[in-house]
Amino acid sequence: MDFGPSTPPEELHARVRKLQQHLQEKQLQGALILQKADLFYFSGTIQQAHLFIPAEGEAVLMVRKDIERARAESALSQVVSLSSPKQIPEILGRHGIDRPARLGMELDVLPANLYFNFIRLFENAEITDISTAIRMIRAVKSDYEIDKIRTAARFSDRLAACVPDLLKEGIPEVELAGRIEAEARKMGHQGIVRMRLWGAELFYGHVMAGSAAAVPSYLSSPTGGAGVNAYVAQGAGMRPVGRNEPVLVDMVFAFEGYNSDHARIYSIGELPADLTAAHQVMRDIQEAVKKAALPGTAAGDLYELALNMAEDKGLGDCFMGTGAQRIRFVGHGIGLELDEFPFLARGQKLALEPGMIIALEPKVIFPEKGVVGIENTHVVTQNGLEQLGEYPEEITVI
Amino acid sequence: MDFGPSTPPEELHARVRKLQQHLQEKQLQGALILQKADLFYFSGTIQQAHLFIPAEGEAVLMVRKDIERARAESALSQVVSLSSPKQIPEILGRHGIDRPARLGMELDVLPANLYFNFIRLFENAEITDISTAIRMIRAVKSDYEIDKIRTAARFSDRLAACVPDLLKEGIPEVELAGRIEAEARKMGHQGIVRMRLWGAELFYGHVMAGSAAAVPSYLSSPTGGAGVNAYVAQGAGMRPVGRNEPVLVDMVFAFEGYNSDHARIYSIGELPADLTAAHQVMRDIQEAVKKAALPGTAAGDLYELALNMAEDKGLGDCFMGTGAQRIRFVGHGIGLELDEFPFLARGQKLALEPGMIIALEPKVIFPEKGVVGIENTHVVTQNGLEQLGEYPEEITVI
Repeated sequence: MDFGPSTPPEELHARVRKLQQHLQEKQLQGALILQKADLFYFSGTIQQAHLFIPAEGEAVLMVRKDIERARAESALSQVVSLSSPKQIPEILGRHGIDRPARLGMELDVLPANLYFNFIRLFENAEITDISTAIRMIRAVKSDYEIDKIRTAARFSDRLAACVPDLLKEGIPEVELAGRIEAEARKMGHQGIVRMRLWGAELFYGHVMAGSAAAVPSYLSSPTGGAGVNAYVAQGAGMRPVGRNEPVLVDMVFAFEGYNSDHARIYSIGELPADLTAAHQVMRDIQEAVKKAALPGTAAGDLYELALNMAEDKGLGDCFMGTGAQRIRFVGHGIGLELDEFPFLARGQKLALEPGMIIALEPKVIFPEKGVVGIENTHVVTQNGLEQLGEYPEEITVI
Repeated sequence: MDFGPSTPPEELHARVRKLQQHLQEKQLQGALILQKADLFYFSGTIQQAHLFIPAEGEAVLMVRKDIERARAESALSQVVSLSSPKQIPEILGRHGIDRPARLGMELDVLPANLYFNFIRLFENAEITDISTAIRMIRAVKSDYEIDKIRTAARFSDRLAACVPDLLKEGIPEVELAGRIEAEARKMGHQGIVRMRLWGAELFYGHVMAGSAAAVPSYLSSPTGGAGVNAYVAQGAGMRPVGRNEPVLVDMVFAFEGYNSDHARIYSIGELPADLTAAHQVMRDIQEAVKKAALPGTAAGDLYELALNMAEDKGLGDCFMGTGAQRIRFVGHGIGLELDEFPFLARGQKLALEPGMIIALEPKVIFPEKGVVGIENTHVVTQNGLEQLGEYPEEITVI
């Protein structure tokens, strides 16, 4: 195998040190990390593994499968083989780590049965949820991570530029989605898009046309979509794309694990004037939020700013959804997962910091007509949001 | 919205009755179902919902989003709105259901934090894991479900037939995968393939060539693959497809939620004789297992039969993987999820029953050369396995 380290050692060490600081503050003796995104963030690999980060000292990555690959991919110095989780206390002991009395785990995602197993394994240690601390650390990206997302955003632009050649009148949404997805794969798209929230999921994104784009779903997202059946129940369905209706192409591109979220509107023939006008309002909201998103701003205030602007233009009832399906947010953090901190959502007090990455997505949902609006991925700087994508933002009329 | 019921009411009622019988046997007052596959199985919808199945009487589906869609998709008679899980005890009370003292939940998948919430909500009720019982019920498919999987298998055959036109020398694996995936989408593939095991995941399947198909990964699967980066670390990578090497196209097709798992081998130019011979051994193993898989047979015995045949032909060392990466199984149940009961794995005592669906996948992994073998989806009948796919099984040489 010719895999090299996926993440530089100094990146991993800086991340581990931030978590260790939290562990020390909370008087936890260590953290045991299992979830794929967290595992990759702190170790550089997603091989089947348990990562123990002691409050002080070196992390130990215990790998069930595949150990050689984990050794190649991870720049951590202690990568050891594990055939059963039962060996964990003994392996830690060999690395000079005592059985922890207070241990942090990702209790927002760890299944209950595994939690019970770890309680037994650590002989009734107090197991505390450290998921919020991990998510806070991950919310502020390093220059290394911002570079990855910058590259992902360039791929998003390239993918958006493929759409006009693929969009034909009468093509079913799902066939159009498949063609765009094939272009993404050709560019090296990893396929899998990870979300943290249990029960949340996304398959590339949403390619949907006209009224079908306004179909509500189970997702905590402004758009839902019919999907091809009730078991997936989101995204592209079988409906053919018509003329003079907005075609939403809202796709996630990932580069070396890091996501960019990007939406543009296309149409075959002109759109009705009210949709074009609403689209412009969404672009204006984007620009206003970009300026207002200075470090220290509460994430929720940006939602209120966006909502007020939509209301001023008479779009309050359909901004980010209609009726009971309305989502009280206008953007979200993004990185290795799609649903990262901060959430630009009602009541969110989390203050922006330089290096946070935000997918800002003001959208209007007209139930009978479809969706217009925009999405770009941005980095928080001292001057507000720096936008990472640059594909033209007006509606592309074919 | 013009959604109709996704699953006939008599199907749902039969499923609910089976679970109720288990609840009564275990003296549980009810089950609270949240996981998407289980929710769909018992209610016909995956909208954000909590499904309460009392030990006796009618189920209550409490829906947060989207209630109208859930009402259209589910043939259950009691579908009510829920704005917070805190309302659940009160809503159940209104439906004549007392607060349960003993409640079943899916503790194999339910995150620990949610488990704690439900312990508080139900005032220290005893919450018991019923995931094994649910998986046992789901393992035996009804005629309705078998029909869906039969249709999915026909789509798998159609997809396999597209491959010869798409396979070109020098095409990167991931580009080839994207083209095959686009054909699948054109046929209405739902995209998302669900697995139950925490941390397990699949993106359509594995399209991999030559030695790249033999790269081990974190998956509990005979094949791994490089993937395009360390964050996905499985499946197609950037390696170009060469001549005279096996190209594995192992893809899942889903029809109305129900999966068919299907693998065929292609090559540009002839393969070395040892690979062609090993492929034939895998086909022979498939035929032997099909005959031996009579109702009452222990699932694990079929693995031993397969392994013995592979060993007799000198392929014991590379059957279902090599060295530490070897997987001790030769097939798995399949349905709404990819990793269902029964597992044809070492030591598995579960007895086959008519109506179980099995993806049987004897494969040989040659580290330097690649993967050969076969996968089809079958239904257990009184006469052994009835194979659902019929695409030619020899290596397709282009």
